[in-house]
Amino acid sequence: MEIFTAPQELRDYLRGRSGIGFVPTMGALHQGHASLIARARSECPMVVVSIFVNPLQFGPGEDLNRYPRSPEMDWQLCRAGGADVLFCPTAETLALSASMTQVVPPLSMTSVLCGRSRPGHFTGVSTIVVKLLEIVHPQRVYLGQKDGQQVAILRRVLADLHLEVDLRVCPTVRLPSGLAMSSRNQYLSAAELAIAPELYKGLQAARVAFDRGTMDPAKLIEAVQLHVAQFPALTVDYVELVDAISLSPLTELSLTTGILAILAIAAKIGSTRLIDNLLLPYASPT
Amino acid sequence: MEIFTAPQELRDYLRGRSGIGFVPTMGALHQGHASLIARARSECPMVVVSIFVNPLQFGPGEDLNRYPRSPEMDWQLCRAGGADVLFCPTAETLALSASMTQVVPPLSMTSVLCGRSRPGHFTGVSTIVVKLLEIVHPQRVYLGQKDGQQVAILRRVLADLHLEVDLRVCPTVRLPSGLAMSSRNQYLSAAELAIAPELYKGLQAARVAFDRGTMDPAKLIEAVQLHVAQFPALTVDYVELVDAISLSPLTELSLTTGILAILAIAAKIGSTRLIDNLLLPYASPT
Repeated sequence: MEIFTAPQELRDYLRGRSGIGFVPTMGALHQGHASLIARARSECPMVVVSIFVNPLQFGPGEDLNRYPRSPEMDWQLCRAGGADVLFCPTAETLALSASMTQVVPPLSMTSVLCGRSRPGHFTGVSTIVVKLLEIVHPQRVYLGQKDGQQVAILRRVLADLHLEVDLRVCPTVRLPSGLAMSSRNQYLSAAELAIAPELYKGLQAARVAFDRGTMDPAKLIEAVQLHVAQFPALTVDYVELVDAISLSPLTELSLTTGILAILAIAAKIGSTRLIDNLLLPYASPT
Repeated sequence: MEIFTAPQELRDYLRGRSGIGFVPTMGALHQGHASLIARARSECPMVVVSIFVNPLQFGPGEDLNRYPRSPEMDWQLCRAGGADVLFCPTAETLALSASMTQVVPPLSMTSVLCGRSRPGHFTGVSTIVVKLLEIVHPQRVYLGQKDGQQVAILRRVLADLHLEVDLRVCPTVRLPSGLAMSSRNQYLSAAELAIAPELYKGLQAARVAFDRGTMDPAKLIEAVQLHVAQFPALTVDYVELVDAISLSPLTELSLTTGILAILAIAAKIGSTRLIDNLLLPYASPT
C-alpha cells in the first residue's frame, strides 16, 4: 500500500490509471469504513482511501480538536481491506484557508436536518470532496448511507458541477445493539453507549408502524419521538422525514409514487451528537 | 468542425482525447476571441470553443436579454480559426437553475473592482466555468487579459479546487483607436464609439507617468481620472490599482518587488458599461 501526503505526488502516481474507487474518510476508521473499502475493492482495480480531518466542515465550538485520530490503526485497517493507496493530506498540502473558494450546495438542502444546527458544515464537506475528487479523479466514490444528508447533497453537487464520477452509497453498518457505527461513538461513556442504540430503536418503531400501514409522516415522526422520549439522557435535535433525493420535507408517503424517503434523527447524549436514519419505503440505495 | 449542444455527447466525443485547448465564450465573437482561438490552435492538437450566454453571471437589471447574439457569424469565425469542436449548450442541457450548487470565489476578490457593482457576477462566472471544465476536461483554457478580474479569480478558483488545467492568458486585442475589443461595443452609437477609446487613453496617461517614474498608486489613479474627467459622456465607476494575482488594492508600487499590478477602469457611456485595464510593471501575462 502506497501512502501519499502531497496532492501532486498522488496525482502523478495515479496518472493514466482508470477504474479508481475512492473512499474519502476523516479517519478513526471502523467497520462502516471497512465496508466501503470492501465494496470498492470488489468493484475497482485500484482503491484509494483518503484520511483527512477536514477543518472546513467543523463549526466554531464543534469537536475539531478532539475528533478521534488513530492513524496507525487506520493504516492497518486500510491495508487489511486491500486498499492500494492511502492519501493523508494536510491542511497545508491542500492549501486550505478560511478565505478560499467554496462549493456551496443548494440552500434548500443545507438548511434542513443537520444543516440547521451546523451552518457551513455541508459547504465545508462539498468543498473538500470536490478538491479530493479533482486530485484523485476516481471512477467511483463510496459513501455511507448513515450520512444520508451528506449523500443527497454530494449527489446534487456532483450533478450540478458535472463531475463525472459514479456515487456508490453503502448501507449503514451497525453494532449488534443496532447502534450505527460512527467515529464519534468513541466519545460515549459505558452508560451513554447503553442508551445510544435507542436512536435506532426509535427509527425501528416508526418502521414497524410503517409496515403496519401508517403512511402519515407526522405519525411516523411521532413514533420515533415517543420512543426516544422515554430516555431523558437523549436530547433530540430533530426527527424529520424528507425526500431522499431533494431533502424536501414530505407531507405524505405513498408506496405507489416510488418516493424514497429518509426518516432521520439527530440527538445528543451528554456532549456527543449522534445521527441515524432509515430509508422508507424499502428501496435500497444504489 | 463538429457542433454539440448536449454535454454528454460532447463528453463522449472527447473521451480519451488529450491536449484539448478550450476557449469558453459568450458568443458575439470578435478579434479578441479569434486571438484566443488562434493561440489554442497553435498550442493544442484539439481546440474546443464554447458559446453560451451564461444567465448566472448577469444580475437583475443587467443586459442578459439584449446581450448580442450572432450564432452564424460566430460559427464562421470558429471554423475560420480552425476550431475542431463548437459546444453550444443551453440552460436546459446544462441543467442551470437559480437554486443550484454555486462555486463561490474568495470574497476579497469579488468585492473589489467590478464585483462592487455586480454582486454575484463572479460566482456565476466561476460556477459556469467549473461546469464547462468538467465537461470538456481541457489541458489548457484560454482567457483574455481584458477581463483582468475574471482571470485572477478563475486562476484562484482553479488552484483552490485543484482543477488540473493550465490557464493561458492572452493580451487584450484593441481597435486602432485603442478601444479594447468587447462584444458590448456593439451597443455604442457612433458618437459613443468616438468617446470609448478615452478609457484606454486614460490608462495610457498613467502609463506615461509610470514610465517617467511615478510609483505612487494614488498619483497613477489620478492621472487616469484627470484624463477621463475631460469627457462628460463618461461616467466612471472605478479606477483602481490592484495586485494582479490577489486583487488586493496596492498602496505602493516597486519595480524591485516584482509585483504585477492591474490598473483597471470601468465606466459607463450612456447605458453601456465598459471595462479596460493595463498591467504594470511591464510583465507579460503567461
